[in-house]
Amino acid sequence: MQENVITSLANSRVKRLVALQQKSALRLSEGVFIVEGVRELERCAAAGLEVVEVYYCPAILPQPPAVTCSAVFEVTQAVYDKIAYRGSTEGVTAVVKTRHLTLDDIALGDAPLIVVLESVEKPGNLGAVLRSADAAGATAVIVCDPLTDLYNPNLVRSSTGAIFSVPCVACSSEECITFLKDNGIAILTAQLQDSHLYYDTDMKRATAIVMGTEATGLTNAWREAADAHIRIPMLGTVDSLNVSVSAAILLYEAVKQRQDLMQ
Amino acid sequence: MQENVITSLANSRVKRLVALQQKSALRLSEGVFIVEGVRELERCAAAGLEVVEVYYCPAILPQPPAVTCSAVFEVTQAVYDKIAYRGSTEGVTAVVKTRHLTLDDIALGDAPLIVVLESVEKPGNLGAVLRSADAAGATAVIVCDPLTDLYNPNLVRSSTGAIFSVPCVACSSEECITFLKDNGIAILTAQLQDSHLYYDTDMKRATAIVMGTEATGLTNAWREAADAHIRIPMLGTVDSLNVSVSAAILLYEAVKQRQDLMQ
Repeated sequence: MQENVITSLANSRVKRLVALQQKSALRLSEGVFIVEGVRELERCAAAGLEVVEVYYCPAILPQPPAVTCSAVFEVTQAVYDKIAYRGSTEGVTAVVKTRHLTLDDIALGDAPLIVVLESVEKPGNLGAVLRSADAAGATAVIVCDPLTDLYNPNLVRSSTGAIFSVPCVACSSEECITFLKDNGIAILTAQLQDSHLYYDTDMKRATAIVMGTEATGLTNAWREAADAHIRIPMLGTVDSLNVSVSAAILLYEAVKQRQDLMQ
Repeated sequence: MQENVITSLANSRVKRLVALQQKSALRLSEGVFIVEGVRELERCAAAGLEVVEVYYCPAILPQPPAVTCSAVFEVTQAVYDKIAYRGSTEGVTAVVKTRHLTLDDIALGDAPLIVVLESVEKPGNLGAVLRSADAAGATAVIVCDPLTDLYNPNLVRSSTGAIFSVPCVACSSEECITFLKDNGIAILTAQLQDSHLYYDTDMKRATAIVMGTEATGLTNAWREAADAHIRIPMLGTVDSLNVSVSAAILLYEAVKQRQDLMQ
């Protein structure tokens, strides 16, 4: 039997992969996380993250994905079913080194367009926001929530790889407000009270779109720091949109305004 | 023991509730489905659907929700844990009669704004589209997919009740195209090829926004029936948006254009 072929569910690497998916503390202490799926792994490697180990199932994926890694293992279907997250049929999963960005790592450029989430109810929601932010060409996503684990498997998956392409920084609300003010970035808070329709608001300037949770909204610190309060009109019976949907509507208004500027 | 108190996991009603959640064929043959959550149930009753049975857990929800129903049961925490979908802590679940709408049931009004999904990859995605459609005040959502079960619990839940407020009709693509043409509703297909930017497209007229799946897009029948092809610019590395996000961006462009018209 080749050394790089894993056939046993009791293999210590199999157990570690499962634990890394389930345990945030283990990811943190080892400084690694799990990336599953061909597209996600390629985006991860393209973003310059270090791929430490690759596990692929030849029964599903005949060739390993084209990423640089010195530790590539073949696994049987049974082993893959065990290590795959949520019954994926992608055929590849990998261990990747985490990369923690700070506010100083954000390349602001001319007129940055930043999404700020004051807190996040579910990792999948943050992943979905990252996907919307990537599509709209946002500069960065900042999460003001000490509980956030940016390497949760649900987040990685729902971002469809955008966690690798959009700079994502976790910090406190206070740090974030100081950063935005110091850099002359207008703070637009999404809130219903005392607000203007989002499409009547200037987003051509350097802009941060700030959103709270669906349940509790934003704290006063953000409302008071705001340059403008903006709202998406709710014309039916539901009282809120999913946060990734709200983010996309607001970001694409900025995209449109900025295109108008160029014409 | 009172007749309307259920304490046993072996109770036949408990088994039926679980089966109704899991089995589309049973929902179809009995003409009922499951609604869980206070908000969802209230929206369901407000929409005029007939609530057949209510099950609530006083340990979680001291009073039953304010809906008219002749068969209200109290259940213990253990029974509720068994019948609750995905570990909800809402404390109430109900059996509700399905209501099947047809294209003729859609009240078109002056300038209808309709979302058409050619097919749906996941029930949760359709629910999320309904939530976006409700928020934007859309007239209806039409699903051209014979496999769709509009009463899947994932759909009901992810719609946050919008399945009750937005008319949702299932039919074939052929029927739908005929309906839209007969009623003078412009067909705007979301696609990348040969398309215009969505915000350069007139949505003040009677409009149907037509979307395919993330994976395969729209079939030729729709592309050929289209009055215009529209696209959302993708400015990052991801190659698609979630369908509920795309729907929301396009619908809110219509909201904005129609508001401009009124000013």
